[in-house]
Amino acid sequence: MTQSFTTIAQFRATLQSMPFTSNAAEAAARERNGQLTKPPGALGRLEDLAIWYAGWRGTGRPRLDHPQIIVFAGNHGIAARGVSAFPAEVTAQMVHNFRAGGAAINQMARCFGATMTVHALELDRPTADFTQGPAMSGAELAAALTAGWQAVDATTDLLVVGEMGIGNTTSAAAIATALFGGGAADWTGRGTGVDDAGLALKTRVVTEGLAANAAVLGDPLEVLRCLGGREVAAMAGAIAAARAARIPVILDGFICSAAAAVLHQAEPGALDHAVAGHLSAEGAHGPLLARLGKEPLLSLGLRLGEGSGAALAIGVLKAAVACHSGMATFAEAGVAAG
Amino acid sequence: MTQSFTTIAQFRATLQSMPFTSNAAEAAARERNGQLTKPPGALGRLEDLAIWYAGWRGTGRPRLDHPQIIVFAGNHGIAARGVSAFPAEVTAQMVHNFRAGGAAINQMARCFGATMTVHALELDRPTADFTQGPAMSGAELAAALTAGWQAVDATTDLLVVGEMGIGNTTSAAAIATALFGGGAADWTGRGTGVDDAGLALKTRVVTEGLAANAAVLGDPLEVLRCLGGREVAAMAGAIAAARAARIPVILDGFICSAAAAVLHQAEPGALDHAVAGHLSAEGAHGPLLARLGKEPLLSLGLRLGEGSGAALAIGVLKAAVACHSGMATFAEAGVAAG
Repeated sequence: MTQSFTTIAQFRATLQSMPFTSNAAEAAARERNGQLTKPPGALGRLEDLAIWYAGWRGTGRPRLDHPQIIVFAGNHGIAARGVSAFPAEVTAQMVHNFRAGGAAINQMARCFGATMTVHALELDRPTADFTQGPAMSGAELAAALTAGWQAVDATTDLLVVGEMGIGNTTSAAAIATALFGGGAADWTGRGTGVDDAGLALKTRVVTEGLAANAAVLGDPLEVLRCLGGREVAAMAGAIAAARAARIPVILDGFICSAAAAVLHQAEPGALDHAVAGHLSAEGAHGPLLARLGKEPLLSLGLRLGEGSGAALAIGVLKAAVACHSGMATFAEAGVAAG
Repeated sequence: MTQSFTTIAQFRATLQSMPFTSNAAEAAARERNGQLTKPPGALGRLEDLAIWYAGWRGTGRPRLDHPQIIVFAGNHGIAARGVSAFPAEVTAQMVHNFRAGGAAINQMARCFGATMTVHALELDRPTADFTQGPAMSGAELAAALTAGWQAVDATTDLLVVGEMGIGNTTSAAAIATALFGGGAADWTGRGTGVDDAGLALKTRVVTEGLAANAAVLGDPLEVLRCLGGREVAAMAGAIAAARAARIPVILDGFICSAAAAVLHQAEPGALDHAVAGHLSAEGAHGPLLARLGKEPLLSLGLRLGEGSGAALAIGVLKAAVACHSGMATFAEAGVAAG
């Protein structure tokens, strides 16, 4: 998609003029759902998903044929503080792995018939260490939001955004703490697997980050600028772009949800076009989804990022839409409706 | 698969001489899992699933390309007692719908690349009303077990069995009560959606069924004969056949799990090659899975049968195996292992 932002104010204005679901399409889908050859409600949450999807796609009998997965990668100044179990070089190494088809998300994309693109965002220029001041300038944030927006293919019919960025669970924890309050310890977890000392360090870095940027943290987009990373901001930009094109989104784990939470806090209803793909094993993900009012579709203990949990849920959404749009009605099948 | 049974004793003997998982393949898969480009454990339950699957397929790097879904249909004498919200004719009407491609399970099969076959088992000859004595003779049970066994394609690499049979949640509740004790009310639920009076009637029918067959209910296969239906027995036969061919199985909802429970009670470990696809909204399914020691993969409020919940979980298992066998190792990808 082609829009670009040079200032945060431009993005904020765009967020405030987003389209809504089609009530007519949703009503048509609800009507169709009641006629399908199954007892009422017997497909459980799949029925709600299909009706929700139909509303956003603007048709009572939608298709889901072209999901897109976008993986954004960025490097974080705070990685130098040792907040991850992995060295910062792994971000670039994993980008290479994504491009070579060797990561988990590549297999998921193949499995569920999704196209996948990878966007490495200035990996050789990490964001600033947010314990010393803002992670990004306004121009840098606008550029990252633009990168996310422009990565979305307007012809896709479902979007998954994922990330790679050593240190980014710490960034996400800082964002969640700034947006929702509580202490840093409430939102900081083990990420890729730090030990107790690592967890204590991460929590301290989050606390320092909030203190260093306290003056501007009342504004969600400033939270993203000061505590986020380029890949986190790009995810927010892509989720917003999907909304503009009425493309439903499946949210991934803790980091993706923190990016989404910025939009949610900046503009009520900004995530109405999104469902939560899964509940991550990262401890604060459940409380974060609760703040967003989202019930996860899957809970299988994943904590990988890359979009992997959301990608796994593509299968659920595809099945929901396939049942809704492909099943016969009682009348078509000559089945007694009970 | 070609084996046939003319007596229950033949099936019992077969159950007692089943193959086991390959410990060597499982160990090879565990070794490979530790080298894949992700933090240890970051794919959560997908890792356990892939290792389990590898063991049963006898290779450390398996594929999952040819899932098979089999839907068995049968009619029940107790349907005449009014235990369902739908008339008994719906069994045959839905078989027609399956064959025409119009049911939920047809859409799921297409979605996840599964072949699907439908086996209607003497629909014009319902089992006997089990409140008056055994639902089936020994020969009838053996024939239904054989039908299930022979429906399995030995070249498939994952099996889902589903059912259609007006009245069969009542049969499943009776089986569960007989196998696991407690009162009929503990295992009887609303099925396709009966009201309070219907639920009371179902519970009474289950109680009467146990009383009418009390003398022989100490033996799980006799429980299946006296309280089951042809489609329930066929599911048990198919699950056993899959074990013989080391084909992993995804269990569906309450009725499928009741069929599986017969095998589990008849022979410890008989379900080691099976995982629970989902937790049904039918209230007693959770307690039943707990008796089988199975943790469901999905919990989305489905209560349709047909194999639909298990079919939905095919996507999860496919993704697990795809990640396991398709991902690069740290060494292959040149990624630092942390």
